[in-house]
Amino acid sequence: MEADVLARLVDALPEGVVVTGAAEMEKYREDFARDGSAGTPAAVVRAEDAAQVQVAVRWAAEHRVPVVPRGAGTGLSGGSSAVEGGITISLERMRAVEIDQACQVAIVEPGALNVDVKIAAAEHGLWYPPDPSSYEICSIGGNLATNAGGLCCVKYGVTTDYVLGMDVVLADGTLVRLGGKQIKDVAGLPLLKLFVGSEGTLGIITRAVLRLVPVQVAGATLVSAFPTMTAASRAVVAIRQRVRASMLELMDNTAINAVEDWRSHGLDRATGALLLAQSDATGAACEAEIEMIRECCEREGAAAVFTTTDPEEAELFVAARRNAFLALEQRGSVLFEDVGVPVPLLPALVDGVAGIAERCGVEIAVVAHAGDGNTHPLIVYDAADPGSDERARKAFHEVMALAIELGGTITGEHGVGRAKKPALPDQLGDDVMALTRRIKDALDPDGILNPGAIL
Amino acid sequence: MEADVLARLVDALPEGVVVTGAAEMEKYREDFARDGSAGTPAAVVRAEDAAQVQVAVRWAAEHRVPVVPRGAGTGLSGGSSAVEGGITISLERMRAVEIDQACQVAIVEPGALNVDVKIAAAEHGLWYPPDPSSYEICSIGGNLATNAGGLCCVKYGVTTDYVLGMDVVLADGTLVRLGGKQIKDVAGLPLLKLFVGSEGTLGIITRAVLRLVPVQVAGATLVSAFPTMTAASRAVVAIRQRVRASMLELMDNTAINAVEDWRSHGLDRATGALLLAQSDATGAACEAEIEMIRECCEREGAAAVFTTTDPEEAELFVAARRNAFLALEQRGSVLFEDVGVPVPLLPALVDGVAGIAERCGVEIAVVAHAGDGNTHPLIVYDAADPGSDERARKAFHEVMALAIELGGTITGEHGVGRAKKPALPDQLGDDVMALTRRIKDALDPDGILNPGAIL
Ligand SMILES: Cc1cc2nc3c(=O)[nH]c(=O)nc-3n(C[C@H](O)[C@H](O)[C@H](O)COP(=O)(O)OP(=O)(O)OC[C@H]3O[C@@H](n4cnc5c(N)ncnc54)[C@H](O)[C@@H]3O)c2cc1C
Ligand SMILES: Cc1cc2nc3c(=O)[nH]c(=O)nc-3n(C[C@H](O)[C@H](O)[C@H](O)COP(=O)(O)OP(=O)(O)OC[C@H]3O[C@@H](n4cnc5c(N)ncnc54)[C@H](O)[C@@H]3O)c2cc1C
Repeated sequence: MEADVLARLVDALPEGVVVTGAAEMEKYREDFARDGSAGTPAAVVRAEDAAQVQVAVRWAAEHRVPVVPRGAGTGLSGGSSAVEGGITISLERMRAVEIDQACQVAIVEPGALNVDVKIAAAEHGLWYPPDPSSYEICSIGGNLATNAGGLCCVKYGVTTDYVLGMDVVLADGTLVRLGGKQIKDVAGLPLLKLFVGSEGTLGIITRAVLRLVPVQVAGATLVSAFPTMTAASRAVVAIRQRVRASMLELMDNTAINAVEDWRSHGLDRATGALLLAQSDATGAACEAEIEMIRECCEREGAAAVFTTTDPEEAELFVAARRNAFLALEQRGSVLFEDVGVPVPLLPALVDGVAGIAERCGVEIAVVAHAGDGNTHPLIVYDAADPGSDERARKAFHEVMALAIELGGTITGEHGVGRAKKPALPDQLGDDVMALTRRIKDALDPDGILNPGAIL
Repeated sequence: MEADVLARLVDALPEGVVVTGAAEMEKYREDFARDGSAGTPAAVVRAEDAAQVQVAVRWAAEHRVPVVPRGAGTGLSGGSSAVEGGITISLERMRAVEIDQACQVAIVEPGALNVDVKIAAAEHGLWYPPDPSSYEICSIGGNLATNAGGLCCVKYGVTTDYVLGMDVVLADGTLVRLGGKQIKDVAGLPLLKLFVGSEGTLGIITRAVLRLVPVQVAGATLVSAFPTMTAASRAVVAIRQRVRASMLELMDNTAINAVEDWRSHGLDRATGALLLAQSDATGAACEAEIEMIRECCEREGAAAVFTTTDPEEAELFVAARRNAFLALEQRGSVLFEDVGVPVPLLPALVDGVAGIAERCGVEIAVVAHAGDGNTHPLIVYDAADPGSDERARKAFHEVMALAIELGGTITGEHGVGRAKKPALPDQLGDDVMALTRRIKDALDPDGILNPGAIL
């Protein structure tokens, strides 16, 4: 890019908004996946408001410069990896959260963290359900752009279910306001929903209206140890048939040991697989749900079942599950999978993944939002060893191929980004890819928005 | 259209699929709104499978013939009104419903009625929540195309929340398969969601995979009589702040009397407004919820509060509410409104509607999915009297203008169709209309799919 072109961007925005030094830009280059796709951007725009986002996008449109929207960079698919010579627009400074208690909505700037919304809502006796394990470090904009899931979505749904309104800056710099504080609204095409999960390829979210619900308290937690992941996932299938649990998570032996190595959470290192279930029903209904879950676990060969109604005790186990990614990262480089299948095929998926690990000679830890059939096989490898790297990448693609073969998906919640792009056509097929391309071209004809992600 | 062009369509499909006689086609011309926009179609295609839909759409694409998809014709916005010289593709013969109990999904052809899915699911102890008042007479395809709401959506959400997969025939006749039986799937753009609520303007739905949940039983029903709609809607606002009711409906004095005139449901004709609330919590939690609802009602001046745990007794009241449209229809012609506002503005909306009725000199009955802020002011008029007709149309537009002014929507669940099209730009604004047009042009460049609806 010519220097005077860049200078025009710098001049158009207040001092300190545009950053161009290599050192300063370094932390905006990659996301948590560190997938190796990141280039060096020409500039990072740390926007303070929607108008600044518009200025930057208009400049980019004029000069055909790639634009990568970036939240907190906790993405696990290279979705916010910097594009060589492009600009990254970071939303991290736009963090306002306002609660409209009467309407039971939060009006949120995209850089606000998920946890900020939860805390603000709780002050009004309200709850924002979507809870990715990264909720303390990821942004609402990133959550919307990936349609983030989490632990409670087995009962309470995913991000898209809670988005009532959105401001989006389009590829030409126009800001559109979609939806609002009304709960039901079918006026016109469902454009709002089109942007949720679009991974920054169709527009930049600068404001969101999020639906809140009354606070819900976990009534009881059940922790069950199984000899194998197969048995544990069979129990999950059985539980789903009988109970609408508010949490249904799994972690395998490798994940348990990684967590224990990192920070002891008091888990038994010999456990083959750990199932975590919660019921947020009240009174006798809660007891009945926990009892049915226990029965399913015992029938599938649980080695030990433990229940508690103490939230702090429960949180120890849940935190262990949430920390699995960070713990595994200590062991080496990690390729993050996010494959999902129809729930009854969960045992087939975990068995298949174990087979791939053996065949490829790699270590794969598995944690899962099991109640939704969404698993995270985490491939741990040594990036400095070309053989290990090659085996890991082979396994990465085989796991996605397996999910597709089982009628499932390559990504349940993390998004395609850059890391999973090669497998997308295998899942969707040519016609759906062509349809995707048509939508992309209609909204971003010059292809400046997050080029290389999804498509 | 030249006769040989039409003959090619007739020849391409099995005997009896294409209907061209005026008398036979009459019942496919209008929907329940009878909005007067319907032309006379060249043919009605009563497709038996997706392949026949593709044949018809390919023929239409080749000859640039308008195509109107049609479910059961219970729509309330002229969405499936026939287009002069076009073809109407009726999905009424495609009615198969299959339950995959293990996956907890229903695989449904578009012509199946909502009630068919509910019954089939119930046979497996499962429940398909979306429940428009028309659930016994409307099709799943129509429900998906309008993103239909209903009575339980105040707690359980609307149609889009239950759609996991879909087959869609695009404007060029290509059939794409989106999503599947997996619960979470973010692979690629959220195309599935784009079609839910697209009112037949982007594609024709030929198959749906619907999410089912375990059966939920209404624990208790509360019926509260109020002197005025203002008081009743204030109670709704208060209830929403404290309880997540599983039903929260309103009907006003005019609606009550219309229902009683039609078929007596035993309602008190002197009641100013009737509130119906349900809790499907269990045991003590249910009692607590009903008690909180009662408190809110009494605080806002309820004249009488009645509660029951007998499902049959409850159903009497719920049926009265559901039958309001049919009962009002006996009184004359009806213009169906579907305006919504953020819940706290519900009293302002009902007051404003009463003001419009008085100013315009028309009778407006109001029923409402009040817990979501979604109301149906029903304007009863005499179509044979030009003065009455003019006043009714004036009121129709004023009610929509009021909703927009209050930051709400012209349609919460029925769709824009043809009847509400003139008001859509006032709600969305030029930029969102332009965006809508871009999506429409990308997917249907020749504009053959349901032309005149939405845009
Ligand atoms: C320890 C750990 C646990 C995790 N657990 C979960 C989990 O349980 N569930 C889950 O879903 N994810 C999980 N993730 C992944 C990640 O946190 C989510 O994808 C999150 O939504 C990303 O948010 P972010 O702000 O970090 O976005 P980024 O990483 O900055 O960006 C993600 C994508 O969104 C786009 N984007 C960001 N902001 C905007 C915007 N304002 N407008 C338009 N596009 C934008 C980017 O271009 C990119 O494509 C986890 C990650 C970690 C590190
Ligand atoms: C008494 C009564 C009560 C009602 N109560 C409610 C209520 O509580 N909530 C609610 O949401 N609605 C309600 N409605 C409105 C109506 O029933 C819904 O809009 C319903 O979803 C329409 O379904 P249908 O099969 O009759 O569709 P149609 O009227 O045939 O069509 C509706 C729209 O969908 C399109 N369409 C239909 N099938 C397909 C398909 N397969 N592919 C693509 N597009 C298609 C049509 O082109 C049209 O635009 C009520 C109607 C009546 C008469």
